[in-house]
Amino acid sequence: MRLLVVGAALGLAACASEPPVREAPVEARSAQAREGETSTPAPLEKPEWTLLVHGGAGALSSGSLSAEREAAAMAGLDAAMEAGAAVLREGGLALDAVEAAVRVLEDDESFNAGRGAVLTLAGKAELDAMIMDGRDRNAGAVAQLRFTKNPISAARLVMEQTPHVMFAGIHADALAAHSGLDMREEDYFVTEQRLDSLQRVLDQLEEAKNTGTVGAVAMDREGNLAAATSTGGMMAKMPGRVGDAPIVGAGGYADNASCAVSSTGHGEYYIRTSFARMVCARVAEGMSAEAATQATLKEIADLGGDGGAIVISHDGSVSLAFNSAGMYRGQIDARGVKETKVYPD
Amino acid sequence: MRLLVVGAALGLAACASEPPVREAPVEARSAQAREGETSTPAPLEKPEWTLLVHGGAGALSSGSLSAEREAAAMAGLDAAMEAGAAVLREGGLALDAVEAAVRVLEDDESFNAGRGAVLTLAGKAELDAMIMDGRDRNAGAVAQLRFTKNPISAARLVMEQTPHVMFAGIHADALAAHSGLDMREEDYFVTEQRLDSLQRVLDQLEEAKNTGTVGAVAMDREGNLAAATSTGGMMAKMPGRVGDAPIVGAGGYADNASCAVSSTGHGEYYIRTSFARMVCARVAEGMSAEAATQATLKEIADLGGDGGAIVISHDGSVSLAFNSAGMYRGQIDARGVKETKVYPD
Repeated sequence: MRLLVVGAALGLAACASEPPVREAPVEARSAQAREGETSTPAPLEKPEWTLLVHGGAGALSSGSLSAEREAAAMAGLDAAMEAGAAVLREGGLALDAVEAAVRVLEDDESFNAGRGAVLTLAGKAELDAMIMDGRDRNAGAVAQLRFTKNPISAARLVMEQTPHVMFAGIHADALAAHSGLDMREEDYFVTEQRLDSLQRVLDQLEEAKNTGTVGAVAMDREGNLAAATSTGGMMAKMPGRVGDAPIVGAGGYADNASCAVSSTGHGEYYIRTSFARMVCARVAEGMSAEAATQATLKEIADLGGDGGAIVISHDGSVSLAFNSAGMYRGQIDARGVKETKVYPD
Repeated sequence: MRLLVVGAALGLAACASEPPVREAPVEARSAQAREGETSTPAPLEKPEWTLLVHGGAGALSSGSLSAEREAAAMAGLDAAMEAGAAVLREGGLALDAVEAAVRVLEDDESFNAGRGAVLTLAGKAELDAMIMDGRDRNAGAVAQLRFTKNPISAARLVMEQTPHVMFAGIHADALAAHSGLDMREEDYFVTEQRLDSLQRVLDQLEEAKNTGTVGAVAMDREGNLAAATSTGGMMAKMPGRVGDAPIVGAGGYADNASCAVSSTGHGEYYIRTSFARMVCARVAEGMSAEAATQATLKEIADLGGDGGAIVISHDGSVSLAFNSAGMYRGQIDARGVKETKVYPD
């Protein structure tokens, strides 16, 4: 039942509309930013807590989004950041924060996860997700959910309530339902916009795009790291296809000794390189979050893929890097940094 | 159709009963071994080709196997080695060799893969497999197959015939069937011995054991590396559970620039550490196959898990290491080395 209580609390947090309580120490606010403004944190200063979110690195051409759709996505990222930050401000766990943030993105049809996921060739949503706790490298993952409203909470349930790490298919939905998670009919996940996109792909009017994934990584006040990733996968994927999002070490990784990673992009390349695990391996060797992420994105590019990732190192350094045209992303921390972006700086 | 032709050719190779053609150069045969005899290859000499196989690192107590069962398993390893070696002797690909070897182990009910797989709590077999080609790090994986006779060939089909890396569930079986792979009724996979074992677990007469997995790694004459892993997973697993075997980077990895790995053991720990990818990362940093494997097994042990792995480095060095009581394993190479073992040296 613990999960349900957490879920309910997070739901409230996500819906809260009051402005965020600024708890950053006064001396840390030199770079305090207004929403949408780029802020540069003082170097080498480790914030008390940090949360990064992403909403996918898709095949966006610069300026190709309508102003309306871009604004909706930015508002969604903002709500997700606030949901996660509410947990961290109160001294809560990084693990709870990333779950809270991802639940908001799953519920927001702007993003390819939960409601509004892209559709398989058969016109259905098949949802994948993983979550990982950097304290002990415990992890949970689910693939091919069709009825569970918040796949990220099903992944957490696998981690905490079963002896296993990963479940796929109808048994994963059954486990979620049996444990009291919110379930939905298949129609809930399917939006008009995604049906239109699928039809354009089926009519060969456009190529199937990698519309990415959502994810969050966080460091809490105790220095714990956590990562969460959730997706509907690739538009027009073959039914049964599993991408990188639920693959621990590919779509995400968290280890207090190195870093937390959530990745997005052409998932097959992320699986073939064990992307998220390699970012953390490079951080463990002494690389910064940015250098480790760029080195591992180069592996992806060398194989012919693209995408991006959000990363927090154990030393508090962060990366929000991508080699695609854009990536929905946001950063919020205890110093008052708060920004959302989609195109390169 | 190419896969079918390959499959048929491999089937013949596996059934061939004539003694292996010794193609190792005369000067390399100083350590030529008779079957079952331990042989020590000359140090630093890289054989023209090498194949390692494993049949699982289970909860074996030393001497706990009946002589009859141990002999049957050793004969199975031997047949698998010969099937793979037949490919390599002819100058064939490492990729073809590991598929050939694993198909033999899947067909042999001594091992927990294909026919004779362990059973879920529901009394069914759910089969996972992955294959990876070190030439380009292309990979294929399948999870929860219930009807496909040789899951490893389904994994190869995913790699070669789809734009994706991984499929799970009934759609994976459908893909295999549609492509002409051999299909079986569910009863084919279920053996009396596994039903008895499941019943003893359900009656709580014994603990659910990790009876391991099968796998093969090979280096061919061109220096190409490949890895293949196939399993029924854990005895009495919850239906829907996916273990490490089909997770690229956990149950296996292959990259000509570093190494080829197939692992076996308590899969959840292998997923949480991205075991196979980390062995290759350590080899890329300059560690020997043995040092890299031991360092990564220590990560597994530190988390509380056990198991083992077979590894071939790009420099030709090998490891067949485990921290469990035993691991069915075999080594064959162009110098005439040929041995099978289960307990520690």
